[in-house]
Amino acid sequence: MKERILTGDRITGKLHLGHYVGSLKNRVELQTQYDTYLILADVQALTTHFEKPELIKQNLRNVALDYLSAGINPDHATIFIQSLIPEIAELTTYFSMFVTVNSLRHNPTIKAEAAERGFQDMYYGFLGYPVSQAADITFCKATLVPVGEDQVPHIEQTRKIVRRFNQLYKPVFVEPKPLVGDVPRLVGLDGNNKMSKSLGNAIDLDSTPEEVSEKIKKATTDPARIHKTDSGHPEICPVYAYHQVFRKEGSAEIYESCKKGQIGCMECKRKMTQSINDLLEPMRERRIVYQNAPKKVDEILMLGTEKARLVAKETMQEIREAMSMNYFK
Amino acid sequence: MKERILTGDRITGKLHLGHYVGSLKNRVELQTQYDTYLILADVQALTTHFEKPELIKQNLRNVALDYLSAGINPDHATIFIQSLIPEIAELTTYFSMFVTVNSLRHNPTIKAEAAERGFQDMYYGFLGYPVSQAADITFCKATLVPVGEDQVPHIEQTRKIVRRFNQLYKPVFVEPKPLVGDVPRLVGLDGNNKMSKSLGNAIDLDSTPEEVSEKIKKATTDPARIHKTDSGHPEICPVYAYHQVFRKEGSAEIYESCKKGQIGCMECKRKMTQSINDLLEPMRERRIVYQNAPKKVDEILMLGTEKARLVAKETMQEIREAMSMNYFK
Ligand code: SF4
Ligand code: SF4
Repeated sequence: MKERILTGDRITGKLHLGHYVGSLKNRVELQTQYDTYLILADVQALTTHFEKPELIKQNLRNVALDYLSAGINPDHATIFIQSLIPEIAELTTYFSMFVTVNSLRHNPTIKAEAAERGFQDMYYGFLGYPVSQAADITFCKATLVPVGEDQVPHIEQTRKIVRRFNQLYKPVFVEPKPLVGDVPRLVGLDGNNKMSKSLGNAIDLDSTPEEVSEKIKKATTDPARIHKTDSGHPEICPVYAYHQVFRKEGSAEIYESCKKGQIGCMECKRKMTQSINDLLEPMRERRIVYQNAPKKVDEILMLGTEKARLVAKETMQEIREAMSMNYFK
Repeated sequence: MKERILTGDRITGKLHLGHYVGSLKNRVELQTQYDTYLILADVQALTTHFEKPELIKQNLRNVALDYLSAGINPDHATIFIQSLIPEIAELTTYFSMFVTVNSLRHNPTIKAEAAERGFQDMYYGFLGYPVSQAADITFCKATLVPVGEDQVPHIEQTRKIVRRFNQLYKPVFVEPKPLVGDVPRLVGLDGNNKMSKSLGNAIDLDSTPEEVSEKIKKATTDPARIHKTDSGHPEICPVYAYHQVFRKEGSAEIYESCKKGQIGCMECKRKMTQSINDLLEPMRERRIVYQNAPKKVDEILMLGTEKARLVAKETMQEIREAMSMNYFK
């Protein structure tokens, strides 16, 4: 039996290269080794996007296409829609009985996000994010959650909730462990240290070759460099950062040439455009296949959701039994 | 079409005379006039009883028997189990996206209950009680909620949530109104101004004639009264308070006789015992019938829950449509 992992995305927009580098690439590699559950977190998207639910609907299939194009194989991975698993809402409710408001206020994710968004008064659902995350992980009894080193504390709240549940009722759950991997953060085209849709500095995974070329052309470079022969500072240039990620073998050479004023930014960017298009090309091919078969994509989502639902129902039966809520037995 | 009312109880123990006088009697009277939805709130019971779920299980059927014995007719009223309507948990989740933590902290019910229980740090689920209450009322689109005058503000949070939902998405819900009735508070046998199971000063609805007699015998009376001829202070005597509720026609006479030292407490209590037993007798007869047919009771609960579930599913479809979450349409 393969161990089960739970991973996925809040549905707030299409995925971009930052997502690919930071998580999607890793998921594609993990999917044969682990029983992968991939959540399309539309409900959690509402915590910040409740005023724009149509945006979630628009992007649900886009993200599914991003997954499939990037190489997620529905034979290995179970892709499912969060809102169609009501057991997640039920579990969230049960967990919320014994999680204190203060422990949520002090949760590192909540603190960071609230600060980032400048929330004075928090929405109740936003504050409960870690509880609902625990429900995502436990409803399907995932034992591993892929995270970066810095996200390890995020799993701690789920582990605490699981321990408390097991102790209060019955040992229904196994404490999930973080599956720590390298989660590189991709800089934005503007040099901002995070590629992000909302900052408008991202290259979407569904970009055409021309779009990639256009975006890279406009990317920030070392502002001190005017002529090709000027000595550059690749360490502050996002294009060089991309070389390190997408064109690793050649990046040392770029570094040298830039420093020595032996390569023009145009040429440097052309190489990068090529590398990114090489990466995206097989994704584009797969995307076209799925785009031309929308029924097939719906079927994948429906089957994945049904499969997750069955698991959820089983878990909920165990929970009702553990909590003495199996009234008709 | 009859208007729908939502009412019910958190399942934390058997019902007593205080419940009967305060709400159950009224529900029995309302059930033919309104489409009555009666919620057995086992999930909300967890907000304060998550450490003792077996107590909820034990009392679920007791409360159902209390309802049926008191005269609730399953042909008129839909008795259902909260935890078996997952749509309530889902709705709670959706509402919680746009309800702020501070508005919940300032909710009168939450403030009063938290103060009463001496909560320093609140549980997340406890804080969300008003949101889950809004879900109870709206999932079945109840338009009326029977309450006492002082509880009118409790409905305000639901009305606010409904207004916000309708404005954010589509006008799915009607703002429920309080159905203000006389909700007398019954004093305890010890003279405490609230009859309450946890204070041990209650007469359960399933008491035998002997139990009623015993309890009334031990009830507090005017402590200044030692001899029958002593002038009494009925206004501070719980037994006199019961006369006003359960033996209204004769209560003026009791008042006079007590004041004038013309009636002994024993005799006064005997009259009261008789009145309470007269009230409980038809309930006992109905209770025996249902107690001897546990399958029938289960059937009533299952049918009521199924009926509520159908309504819940319809509402959830409208909600998904309003929130652009009808992905496969
Ligand atoms: S040559 Fe390349 S690394 Fe150097 S500044 Fe130009 S784009 Fe950046
Ligand atoms: S006579 Fe009745 S009302 Fe007066 S003190 Fe005794 S029990 Fe109370």
